[in-house]
Amino acid sequence: MKRLCALALVVVAGAVLTAQPARRAISLVVIGRSVITQNARHQILSPGAVAISGNEIVDVDTPDAIALKYRALDTIAARDQIVLPGLINTHTHAPMVMYRGLADDLALMDWLNTYIFPAEAKTVSPEMVRIGTRLAALEMIESGTTTYTDMYYFEEEIAKVTAEAGLRGVLGETIIQFPVADAKTPAEGLARAERFIKEFKDNDLIVPAVAPHALYTNDRATLVASAELGRRFGVPVIIHFAETQDEVKVAREQYQMTPAAALESIGFWGPRTLAAHGVWVTDADIEILKRHGVGIAHNPESNMKLASGAAPVRKYLAAGVAVGLGTDGAASNNDLDMFEAMRQASFLAKLSTMDPTAVPAQTALDMATILGAKALHMEGLIGSIEPGKRADLITVGMNATRQNPLYDPVSHLVYVTRGDDVRTTIVNGKVLMKDRQVRTLNRSEVIADANKLAQKVREAVGR
Amino acid sequence: MKRLCALALVVVAGAVLTAQPARRAISLVVIGRSVITQNARHQILSPGAVAISGNEIVDVDTPDAIALKYRALDTIAARDQIVLPGLINTHTHAPMVMYRGLADDLALMDWLNTYIFPAEAKTVSPEMVRIGTRLAALEMIESGTTTYTDMYYFEEEIAKVTAEAGLRGVLGETIIQFPVADAKTPAEGLARAERFIKEFKDNDLIVPAVAPHALYTNDRATLVASAELGRRFGVPVIIHFAETQDEVKVAREQYQMTPAAALESIGFWGPRTLAAHGVWVTDADIEILKRHGVGIAHNPESNMKLASGAAPVRKYLAAGVAVGLGTDGAASNNDLDMFEAMRQASFLAKLSTMDPTAVPAQTALDMATILGAKALHMEGLIGSIEPGKRADLITVGMNATRQNPLYDPVSHLVYVTRGDDVRTTIVNGKVLMKDRQVRTLNRSEVIADANKLAQKVREAVGR
Repeated sequence: MKRLCALALVVVAGAVLTAQPARRAISLVVIGRSVITQNARHQILSPGAVAISGNEIVDVDTPDAIALKYRALDTIAARDQIVLPGLINTHTHAPMVMYRGLADDLALMDWLNTYIFPAEAKTVSPEMVRIGTRLAALEMIESGTTTYTDMYYFEEEIAKVTAEAGLRGVLGETIIQFPVADAKTPAEGLARAERFIKEFKDNDLIVPAVAPHALYTNDRATLVASAELGRRFGVPVIIHFAETQDEVKVAREQYQMTPAAALESIGFWGPRTLAAHGVWVTDADIEILKRHGVGIAHNPESNMKLASGAAPVRKYLAAGVAVGLGTDGAASNNDLDMFEAMRQASFLAKLSTMDPTAVPAQTALDMATILGAKALHMEGLIGSIEPGKRADLITVGMNATRQNPLYDPVSHLVYVTRGDDVRTTIVNGKVLMKDRQVRTLNRSEVIADANKLAQKVREAVGR
Repeated sequence: MKRLCALALVVVAGAVLTAQPARRAISLVVIGRSVITQNARHQILSPGAVAISGNEIVDVDTPDAIALKYRALDTIAARDQIVLPGLINTHTHAPMVMYRGLADDLALMDWLNTYIFPAEAKTVSPEMVRIGTRLAALEMIESGTTTYTDMYYFEEEIAKVTAEAGLRGVLGETIIQFPVADAKTPAEGLARAERFIKEFKDNDLIVPAVAPHALYTNDRATLVASAELGRRFGVPVIIHFAETQDEVKVAREQYQMTPAAALESIGFWGPRTLAAHGVWVTDADIEILKRHGVGIAHNPESNMKLASGAAPVRKYLAAGVAVGLGTDGAASNNDLDMFEAMRQASFLAKLSTMDPTAVPAQTALDMATILGAKALHMEGLIGSIEPGKRADLITVGMNATRQNPLYDPVSHLVYVTRGDDVRTTIVNGKVLMKDRQVRTLNRSEVIADANKLAQKVREAVGR
């Protein structure tokens, strides 16, 4: 970690002797005890300040230098807090917060057939998706997530709620071979996805995407059509990939190949593909993913809780594959806290390689920020605090007892911090939460609506 | 989960017809939306109330029934919260909170030789131990731990601070072959341990113990003498056991046996032994531990972060070995939050057995409460909310966004709750924290003292 040299001091001294230079009018300054930029040099400014104009970061410097250069309409003085890029959740199913804790500790097929599928069959609707997404958005804003990637049904409803809440979303309409709530056939799903993409492709917060569910839940033609749709509109294509050993078996039976090779053989991998999980891969598979620029969404908590396995994160990173972090849906995890995902990514990598140096704290933080942005092919826009990028950032309290003493802020962010320590969440230059008060959602209404709907979920599964 | 049948209603009806019966005067009633008793039948009362007289639980019933039977000096009405037994941390090194986050992600010997040993050599003193234990006690009270097991130096200082803070402690004076801050030789350590045991053996909160550090850091004579000291005074004997593969290698070289068999061969295992970690054991080793009634302190977070391995928790439980949970010291974990330990125990067991049904939420909660009490051979006193046991209990908020909706309180306690959700901590009938205000420690003073001392730690390791 290097500090920016304090060139600003020269300017300060100069200002005393000459006329006060004209200060540029901007919308917001955020000041912290440290600004962890996550730029390519991993610079940390202590103290530091971020200058924001509209939806864009225009400068990062010492608080004194920023004060000299800019006149801000609003200032967030988080002098006892750490400022860092907003966290990027690269894999979830937002409305599934409605099923969190409904059933745990079951074999996958029991869990799906006895609880999740019956609950979804009886409760998924545009209204359920709106209520669930509002609850998920509230939880994400409260825990410092500023961009999230989703795969679910009625994705246009998810997009509307996400934009209203002020979050950035990479949102994929699910394509699946069997009949689901929003499409009786994959063709219907593809038509819905196309309408969705057209509706949202110019939205400043929403990146619409197409999300063929998985290799084992779609036939070859549907996978090819999904990839083609993504390419035609230049939008992301999101898929569950190599999550379990069962999927490897299916690929072998149907394609006589690994999942990575099977998807390559049908021309599925494209320049904006995001593959969620990627647990069961060979070294040759990693080369395939690297060759096509595929990003990986690593979900350590879900992979442990569902006993799926341990993704070879260190191998991916060594090969230059961008690995982001995800929480997965709250039905399997059971929360959307990216601080837990960071800690778990580090713990799981160390255990699975039997090497305590694997995925150090800095790498876990990278995966939750800049590497997540790269996995989404959006590193030009988000993932670090740098001039020209979108103003997506958070401030995090460091005053909890468990955060004392403080020797290394990056260690603390990964190993002892929780989402509840986040104090401010800013997306696209807009303050969504300040001092833990969310401004874009009515918290008590959101929770009351969810609890009312939960009664229907209980009835659906006979609990 | 079964509910207590509402026999109290009969009493209520009767009371209307006859004279009001005299109500017994008691000190405290705690009311919750649910009382999770953790008794042998896993009873949950919703709503429920706990009647406390002095340091003892005298009754558990519906709030109405408790109101009819008792007149309490004080009432904690936590009607939106869950009441459960205080959590039992079966393995930590309290003062090591002073080294949390000082160095992470290093190979074990680098970590010890470059950071921990130099920091300890230059900073461990009675004063450091007091300051560190106060900080640890604050963190434990704030996160719902009511009993903790410790191994460190100057354990008499730890005992004094623990009793002042009002926590229950099973505290072991460390015996180690090489010179340490409080003993130049193991003989000195044993003499200090004996004085410590004599001083605290009648304390209502402190269970003094002897803690030979490990098989690989003590010779045979010291191990035997330590076990003998424990037996002579009928106090617990605590040891690090089979934590790493290196220890297995040492046992093979020095004893031509596994660690469990080696310790059996010298008569080490006794009726009150607690073995921390127990990662690398054979099925025959588990039988040895079972035969001697040894308790295991399982430390899933530390075992993952240090890449030690995955303890065979399911095998231990199937064999009838009592497995409690521990956080390990904050230098390796890096916090003392038992909710994290529960979640991690479940995740790690599922991953390491590749079975999502391993260590379900209820079992994780058992390990943090009644099984932890059994591992400490204290199940007659603590670990569940039952009449006759010590009044060690906590109330936990369920209103965080991530805790909505709520289908199953046990699932939520393990999978989405954090120590920060704890609202009330009661030990031995005394309210140590109410509405997150700790009463027995001055929070700002404790943190200021720790941060002042941290400067010496920084200097000791040149950071």
